[in-house]
Parts: sequence; C-alpha cells; structure tokens
Amino acid sequence: MPLRKKLNSKIRIDKNTGFGSNSSSYGGRFITKNGNANVRKTGVSFFDSISWYHTMITIPRWKFLFIVFLFYFTINFVFASIYFILGVEHLNGITALSRLDKFGQAYFFSVQTYTTVGYGHISPKGFLTSSVAAIEALLGLLSFAIATGLLYGRFSKPKAHVLFSKNAIIAPYQGRTALMLRISPYKNTNLSEAEVKITLGMHIEENGVITNKFFTLDLEMNKVNALTLSWTLVHPITEDSPLYGFKEKEYKNTIGELIVFTKMFDDMYSTNVVRRTSYTFEEIIYGAKFAPMFTRSEDDSKTVLHIDRLNLFERVNL
Amino acid sequence: MPLRKKLNSKIRIDKNTGFGSNSSSYGGRFITKNGNANVRKTGVSFFDSISWYHTMITIPRWKFLFIVFLFYFTINFVFASIYFILGVEHLNGITALSRLDKFGQAYFFSVQTYTTVGYGHISPKGFLTSSVAAIEALLGLLSFAIATGLLYGRFSKPKAHVLFSKNAIIAPYQGRTALMLRISPYKNTNLSEAEVKITLGMHIEENGVITNKFFTLDLEMNKVNALTLSWTLVHPITEDSPLYGFKEKEYKNTIGELIVFTKMFDDMYSTNVVRRTSYTFEEIIYGAKFAPMFTRSEDDSKTVLHIDRLNLFERVNL
Amino acid sequence: MPLRKKLNSKIRIDKNTGFGSNSSSYGGRFITKNGNANVRKTGVSFFDSISWYHTMITIPRWKFLFIVFLFYFTINFVFASIYFILGVEHLNGITALSRLDKFGQAYFFSVQTYTTVGYGHISPKGFLTSSVAAIEALLGLLSFAIATGLLYGRFSKPKAHVLFSKNAIIAPYQGRTALMLRISPYKNTNLSEAEVKITLGMHIEENGVITNKFFTLDLEMNKVNALTLSWTLVHPITEDSPLYGFKEKEYKNTIGELIVFTKMFDDMYSTNVVRRTSYTFEEIIYGAKFAPMFTRSEDDSKTVLHIDRLNLFERVNL
Amino acid sequence: MPLRKKLNSKIRIDKNTGFGSNSSSYGGRFITKNGNANVRKTGVSFFDSISWYHTMITIPRWKFLFIVFLFYFTINFVFASIYFILGVEHLNGITALSRLDKFGQAYFFSVQTYTTVGYGHISPKGFLTSSVAAIEALLGLLSFAIATGLLYGRFSKPKAHVLFSKNAIIAPYQGRTALMLRISPYKNTNLSEAEVKITLGMHIEENGVITNKFFTLDLEMNKVNALTLSWTLVHPITEDSPLYGFKEKEYKNTIGELIVFTKMFDDMYSTNVVRRTSYTFEEIIYGAKFAPMFTRSEDDSKTVLHIDRLNLFERVNL
Repeated sequence: MPLRKKLNSKIRIDKNTGFGSNSSSYGGRFITKNGNANVRKTGVSFFDSISWYHTMITIPRWKFLFIVFLFYFTINFVFASIYFILGVEHLNGITALSRLDKFGQAYFFSVQTYTTVGYGHISPKGFLTSSVAAIEALLGLLSFAIATGLLYGRFSKPKAHVLFSKNAIIAPYQGRTALMLRISPYKNTNLSEAEVKITLGMHIEENGVITNKFFTLDLEMNKVNALTLSWTLVHPITEDSPLYGFKEKEYKNTIGELIVFTKMFDDMYSTNVVRRTSYTFEEIIYGAKFAPMFTRSEDDSKTVLHIDRLNLFERVNL
Repeated sequence: MPLRKKLNSKIRIDKNTGFGSNSSSYGGRFITKNGNANVRKTGVSFFDSISWYHTMITIPRWKFLFIVFLFYFTINFVFASIYFILGVEHLNGITALSRLDKFGQAYFFSVQTYTTVGYGHISPKGFLTSSVAAIEALLGLLSFAIATGLLYGRFSKPKAHVLFSKNAIIAPYQGRTALMLRISPYKNTNLSEAEVKITLGMHIEENGVITNKFFTLDLEMNKVNALTLSWTLVHPITEDSPLYGFKEKEYKNTIGELIVFTKMFDDMYSTNVVRRTSYTFEEIIYGAKFAPMFTRSEDDSKTVLHIDRLNLFERVNL
Repeated sequence: MPLRKKLNSKIRIDKNTGFGSNSSSYGGRFITKNGNANVRKTGVSFFDSISWYHTMITIPRWKFLFIVFLFYFTINFVFASIYFILGVEHLNGITALSRLDKFGQAYFFSVQTYTTVGYGHISPKGFLTSSVAAIEALLGLLSFAIATGLLYGRFSKPKAHVLFSKNAIIAPYQGRTALMLRISPYKNTNLSEAEVKITLGMHIEENGVITNKFFTLDLEMNKVNALTLSWTLVHPITEDSPLYGFKEKEYKNTIGELIVFTKMFDDMYSTNVVRRTSYTFEEIIYGAKFAPMFTRSEDDSKTVLHIDRLNLFERVNL
Repeated sequence: MPLRKKLNSKIRIDKNTGFGSNSSSYGGRFITKNGNANVRKTGVSFFDSISWYHTMITIPRWKFLFIVFLFYFTINFVFASIYFILGVEHLNGITALSRLDKFGQAYFFSVQTYTTVGYGHISPKGFLTSSVAAIEALLGLLSFAIATGLLYGRFSKPKAHVLFSKNAIIAPYQGRTALMLRISPYKNTNLSEAEVKITLGMHIEENGVITNKFFTLDLEMNKVNALTLSWTLVHPITEDSPLYGFKEKEYKNTIGELIVFTKMFDDMYSTNVVRRTSYTFEEIIYGAKFAPMFTRSEDDSKTVLHIDRLNLFERVNL
C-alpha cells in the first residue's frame, strides 16, 4: 500500500542513491539483507557479466574448493589422455599391462608433473612426451599461481567485521521517538573512523502516481573515531523526518526499506572497508528499547562487550 | 573549423586538465576512446619509457602468455646450451647417442630443473654441472615469482567494471536541451560513491589565434552513493554552458571532445577504481532521447537491468 | 577519585570516541599502551570472534612459526597414517622391516609429497595410494599458499614506524603550561601528512553520578607535511582546556587517560598507516621539559636524530 | 651567508614541515635530490632502526640479487654441513670417495631439497637425515616466500613515474618574475589528480639569531586533473612571496632549498603515489625561460612529448 500523506518540505530527499524513482521497476527489495543490490543484469553475455575475481573471492568456501578440485582432476585427465594417445611407451617406468592401468599410470604421471612433485619413478622419454610434460609443468605453475593467489586472497581480503542488529526499532527518545539500530564489531580488530549513512526508500503516491522516493535520515551522530564498543545509530523522528507522524499502522503498511551503509578504517588491512545492509518495514519493531550491551569485567580490568545482546530489546509503549 | 563565437563569461574554464592550450600541439584526440592520453613520449630511451609492470598488466592475455612461453623456451635453451657445452657426460641418465638428441635431453633436464619438477631420471654429476643446476633452480623460482605474480596481478587488478554509452546525445530537458550520456555497471560488483567529471575541450579562435580551451561541464548530479543501476549524466545547456547556442551545424563542425572521468569505490577490491573515456563531436548525436534501461522482473522480486540498451536512443526533433 | 570541578562550557566534549559514558563499564583503561581497545567480547563463539587473518598477522613471530611447524608435523602425520593403513606395500622403495620404521618411511614419503620435493626413492604404487598422494600434493600447494602468503604478509604489512615518548609531561609554555608528548620516526621510512588527534577521557562526577567524559584536546599543530624529525605535540592549557586549573594533586588523583591517535602516509607502502597509544594520569609527569632530540652531524652534512632521547626530560618547577 | 632582510608579514610561513627552526641542526640539505630526508638516526639499535621490508624494496637490484644469492649459498652450506656431520652414509646415492667430494654431494643434495627440485639420485636414509631434509624443505618453501614476494614486490611497487627538471628557474612572467620548475610523466602510465606543494626553507637572521624558516610558495595552479603532458609549476614572485626583491646576488648567497612534494593517483596501481625532490639555491637559474616540450606528431594524430627537453631553457635578462 503506497503512502499518501504530504511530506514536510524540509525533508532531505536523496536523489543519488543509484536507484531510479520509477516504482514499477522496484522488485521487492533494493538491497538484500547481506548488502548486495537486488538487481539482475541481462543483455550481456554470461562471461562478460561475471568478474571471475569477484566471483571466486565471494563464493562459499566449499564451492571454491570444489572448483579447485574439479579443475585439478580435469586438467590432469586432459594431460593423461595426451600421454596415453602419444603412447605410454614414451613414459619410463610404466609397469601396467591393461589399458586402464596404463591410463591410470599416465594420469598419476600427469599429477606428478602438474604439481612439480616429480618422483621420477615414471619419467618422460622422447621429444614429444617430454615437450608435453614441459608444457604441463609450466601450466601447473601458472594455474597454481591463480589458485593459491585466490585462496590467500580470500583469506586476506579486507572485510568489515561488524554485525548489525537484526531489527531496527522505534524507541522513545528525548520526549519523542527515534529510529534506532545497532552495529557492533565482533572480532579482534581495530576499527577507526567509522561512518554511517542511512537512506530510507519508500513507495509514495504523488498526484496519483506511485514512485520510489529516497530520503537521507539525519543521525544524531554519523561518525565515531573508533568503533570499539557497540554503536547505537539514532535517527530522531522530528518534523523534518520522513517518518514523522508514522504510527504502528504506517510502519506495517508502507512498502520500503532502510538502506544502511557503513565505512570504516581497519588498522590491519590499512584500508577502508565497507558494509551495507537493509531493513524492510517488517523488520522495524514499533515500540522497543535496546538493552545495554557492555558491562565491566569482574576483575575490573576490562570492558566486556556482549555480542549476543546486539538485537536484545524490550517492548515499550509509545 | 574553429569556433568563432564569444563565450559567456560565467562559463567555468578548466585550466588544469593536464593538456596545453596550444592548439598546434593537438593531435586529433586528447584521450582515446578507452581512456588513455593520446600522447607519444620521445627523448627517453625505450627502457626508461616503459613501466614493465604497467605493460605486463595491461597487454592482451595472448601477448602476455606468448611472452611467458617465449621466455620459458629461451631460458631453457640457454641453460641446455650450458649443460651441452659443459658436456652431457656430467648428466646421469642421458641415453642419447646423436648430438641433437643429447641436446634434447639436456634441454628437458633444464626444464625439469627450472620448474623444480626434478624427475631425476636425468641428474647432474660433478661440481660444475651441479652448480649450474643449483643456479637454474634458484632462477626458476625467482622468475616464476614474477610470472605467476603478474598472472595473478592481472587477474586481481582493480578495474572499474562500468560501460559507457557509445554516444553522447543532445536531448530535450526541462524545456531546454541537455547533453547526456549513460554509464552502467555490468558485472557482479558493488560500486559505491561514484563520481563523474566531464571536461569539454574545443578549438576556439580568439583574436585570430586558435587555441585549445577546456571547460568543466556542470552536471545535474555528479555523485551517487551507489552505482547500482544505469546512471544518466545530464549537463543542462543553460546560458552558462559552453555549448549554449550550439545548433546541429556547430556540433558537426567543432573540433573537440568530451573527456569523461569516473571514480568509484569497489567493495571487493576495497579501493577506488577509475575509468576515463572521451567523445568527439562526431560521437554526439543531436536530437535523441535515451530509452529506459531497467524493468521489474517477472516474478516481481528483482530489478532487471538491460545492459544491451545502454546506447539505445530514439531520434527526436529539438 | 572522580573529579568534581565545574568544567568551562567552551571545552570541546568529544561524543564520538566509540566508548560509552557509563563509568561503571570502565575497566581500568580504555586503550592499552600498545593501542588496542581494552575490551573483551563475549556472546559469540570462539571461531566467530577471531579473524584468523588478523590473528596470524599479529601474533609474535615464534608463535607463528610454531603454528606452521605444528601444522606441518600434524598434516604429515595424518597422511603418513593413511599410507600406513593403506599398506606400505603400495609404496615402492620402502626398505624398512619393523612397523615403526615402515611408518617412519611413510612419514617421510608424505613430507616429500606435501612439499613437492618428490625425491622418488619412495614412490606410490596402485590407484589408491597414488590418489592419496595426488590429493596430498594439491593440499600441500594450497596450504603453503596460506602459510607463505601469511609469512610474506607479516613481513610486508603496512605499519606506522613511529615511537611515542613513554611519558606525557606538563611543561611551561608561553607563560602558561601545556601538556606535551613526543612522537618520532625511527626507521628508514618516509612518512608524510602525519596527523594526530588526542582525546582525554576522565571520570567526572556530575550531579552525584560518575560518568566517563571525553574531550578533544586542541593542539598547537595537529598536522605536519612530513614526519622527518621528532614532533612535540603541544596542548596549551588555556581556560578552554579540560585540564585548566589542574595542579599536581589533580593529576595524581584523577582517573582517566589520554588516547593518542596518529595517522600518516608511508611512501613505501603507498598507504595510510595508523598508530594508537594511551597515557594514564600516572604516566603524566607534572613539571618537566623535553630535552632537544636532534643535532647537526660532525661533518655538517646531516641532521642527527637521537631516538634514545625521545623520553628525555628534565624536571622544572611550574 | 644568512639573509638579513625584513620579510613581508603576509608571507605564509609554514610551521609544519617536519623540520625544526634551529639552524644549528641544519646539515647542508633538508631533503636529498631524490627526496629522502637528510637525517641520520642514532640511539636505536641497528636492527630496530631498519625496516627490512623498506630496505629490501629500495636497495639497488644488484644488491638485492646479491643478498638472495648469498643467503641461498649460505643456508645450503649450513644444511650441507649438518648432513656431512650426520654422515653421508645416511644419503643414498653418494658416490664420492674424498671428504671434499662427499661434502660437495651433500651440498647439492641440500640445494635439491631446499629448492624442492628433488631429483632423487641422492635421497635421505634414516630418521635423523630424513628429518633434517623435511625441515629444510619447509624452510626452503618459507624463505622462498619472502624472497619471491620481495622480488615481485619490488617489481609491482607503486612508484610515481615522473621526472623533475634538474633546475628551477627565475623567469619573466606577466610583467614580473616567477619561480618555475617542470615535472613530466615519462612512462606508459595514466596519472590523475596530481597535486604539488612547494616549501621554501631558508636561513634567516632575526634579531641576530640565525634560524631555519619555512614558507609555503603559492602556485598559480597546484592541482591538475590529469598529468598527461609536462606541467610547469609557477610561483609568481609578488610582494607576498618570500623571494620578493631577490636579485641574482641573493639567489647566489642564500642558504636554503626548495622542497617539492607531489602526489598523484596512478590508475594501474589504483593508489596514490608520491615523489619528493629538492632544489638548493645553487640549482636555481636566475634569468631563464623553459623551451616548449610538446609538439604535434607528423601525421597529426598524436601530441608528442619530448622528455629530453624537460630541463631545456634559454637564458634571458630580467
């Protein structure tokens, strides 16, 4: 159900979200929960539409390892076939009698060449087979450069090690209400100069036409020098907020979402890292208060941050 | 044909383009279509004028692989020659009788040493040959460091995965006209904080002298938080535009070009990436309107971006 | 003992330190001497709370090498066990007679496969053992990618090569006093565009409640173009300083600390590097003057920077 | 000879150069010609004063390769000694009779293990020797990680590929004079967003005391969007310049230097790169005019940049 109410003219409309205003192109969600744009690209060939680097860095670990194993198996199969076709009599040390066993030994010779293990109990003989082995050893080194580079790249890739509260809440705040959500570091990292930007996208009916409108939500504080403990992001709902006047019903019925963008500097990576997430209106809890997340350690020597309380809130009446 | 008309004094002249104002040094194009400066450097030795890293990272893949193969072939040839000259009797396991076959076996021994495969059916004997093999193994490891580093470097190099529309257009816009062009992401990347700067370079006759003049074109919006869908860059042609008063004839006859510079942050690379392109006046279509590029998916769950419509426009009369 | 005095209203309170104002959660120190937040995170599983990359990059060298050796020993033990269980009769070249010796030879065969040395005096025979060896060689290459990547990552990791004086001092300064501390480069690096931010955190009693309050300390100069010699950071204690009116007694009794954050550009790494440290009130010397740190070289051709004088000061009466 | 004249009060004194004002610590030059601070650090142990990464990345290529070879030779000598002491009877395939030859064969076995070539004509026998070989293979892989990482690191290190004119000149400029120097790219790189900062350091006598004073020189233009052609840096010598009123004699007699700092973005490295240089007063030519550096190519399709004319100037009378 699109929103019909008149918006205060002082509200900061955000025109540069990278999304269009044409609501008919809106497909349910602008940004997925884990921060990717909910967009499908067509009209470009599969290979052009894929950045292999991005894909290999982001796919789950088991998929990555599966691809590596499959590639390893396949390339050795190809080279084993070449050695077999050239004739295993050009391989010293082949002891097999059956064709299958001969192929098997050619296969393991290929493995030993490709990985540069080179035990040598099987070795190439003659110009052709030796040349194929020379090429295979080179290809092995080159392709392991990509595979091992990617493996380490996945391991060392700069990531923003922060968690967001599952819900955003509408909480009492200084005699009014405010939209709040929480963000927290959860690993052994030093994060500094953290910034947050929250954009609200909503379906709004203007002159009978439903359009996507985007608003920048002003935050009480949008930058901290160090992200050491949890950080509660507070958007006070004043007259200048696009959420002004919203009651439980409006939060229920509006189609739209909060797009949260964070950027911070990670000491270890020595670079800026970013994270995005989104909250649909169903994920906004009307009338709630976050519980405190940090306490003092028993021996009084440290602050203790309870990550499992990140989304802990109690219901309150507004 | 140089432009003769008087320019409005409020137009923003851009003095820091990195190009001179002396039109006699202008060679047809400031920036090539794929964004490199159209400049040839002389007066410096070939080796000093080349950054090998830049060259090896940017040359086409087939050239890169060809160079790697050629180097591999050549260095092994050199070492094979050394082993041959030292005498193949210092290699255990040489079975060849003819000189050519002996060289061949020395060659494959070199390969097996250089790649550290080391089957061992041929192995070095005596101090000199063993020493050469020791040096070759070291050189192999060192040179593969460069080759495999470059291969992975090419694969993982930060690039701006965006496309530009082939043409810029002059389109109707809010009762006037505007210069427009489109940019779109086309791969599975998250691009944020995208910025664009458009500079117009033209031959202009001032007091009878033709000079290169550069102008910064004001854009309706020159920054978006996220480059998720296509982005139409709009330069409204007002009185303060250097294109003010241009009719079809002027667009046809003026010598000059639009230089487009974009910069954005890629989440995966965690760094800023840049792209440049240029449009000569011949590439500007006078009287056209871009067709929409994105629609809603059939199951209503995603926005669909049609990359193949990036340069799709229809002719209109201005 | 919390501070009770009224603070000047012009003092710049810093709300975005990343620490809360609730003094009951303060555990002795906000930031440890070497710059990490003094926070313990709970409520998240051990594996989720650890960024392995951060951990492996920051642990001491001996721990890192110990982990690598232990892993190397263990994985070879696992593969040796597999070869042993499959039967050492599937390994050519096993000469051992006792079970222990057989396991030992299987172990060294595993090592030679895992490292891709592959002498070949022991080699796999039969499909199963050959397959295990093929997988081990692949795993060897992949795991060495992580190990050697980390080793080089530790070696090449951007770090801010600067030292801080052990103490901050309260020194006479332009007819008043000033809080001073020193920072100095100490390695063969070129550091430019160095910035410093000093935050003072104190326990303060307001209306009978003790809270953490944070203040930004204004520095005489908070940025230098190049960090070439030592740099004395000077916070003049004027009426607008939160330290105004503090005498020796207050410095002794106040609970709190100075949090120092520096950021600079290192030419070699081509990136910004950061360092943090902190000074508790016990580490502030009341009444002292830093001794000069640099002199002219004897042959008059260089400035000499005496790193060992970084914390050198003489006592003065204020 | 220190300068005695009164300086205009509007001159911008630069206090944050990272150099002190105490002239007695000035040792001939602040910044060497190739941009390093002319400072020696003492009072810290040799190992603490060296960043090995910085050193290994910046030393000349021949020194780097020499260190790698020396290390390779030495570590194999150490392991050869261990094998020799343990007894070469624990190495299969040793054919030598004399002690020296036995050591030689142990040495080459070490090489073959360390590089993981592992021909296998010599192979370890027994627990102890096999264990040492296992450790050597691991150390080989780890140390080659450092060596090859550094080699590629040297190759791919972001560098600012720009040249400075050897001299700065005092040239006629708009009815006055100006200090000028030139900077030019000279490799196949795309440099954008280039910035320059020029600081003038001089010995000045104030109230009978000689001090180092630093001044920021205002440039006609201190930023260009793209560094495509040569760029002439122009500091007009107006009343507000610290060089105002300087004649040939002052340029000859003043002790001091221009410190030039440049920063630019290199597309390929996707990062900012910096360069520094300096000009002493002896390197400033009084009365000169730079010759043009770029022309149009004969076929009119490119601008040609003559790098060898970077320092080309003709003498003029001022």
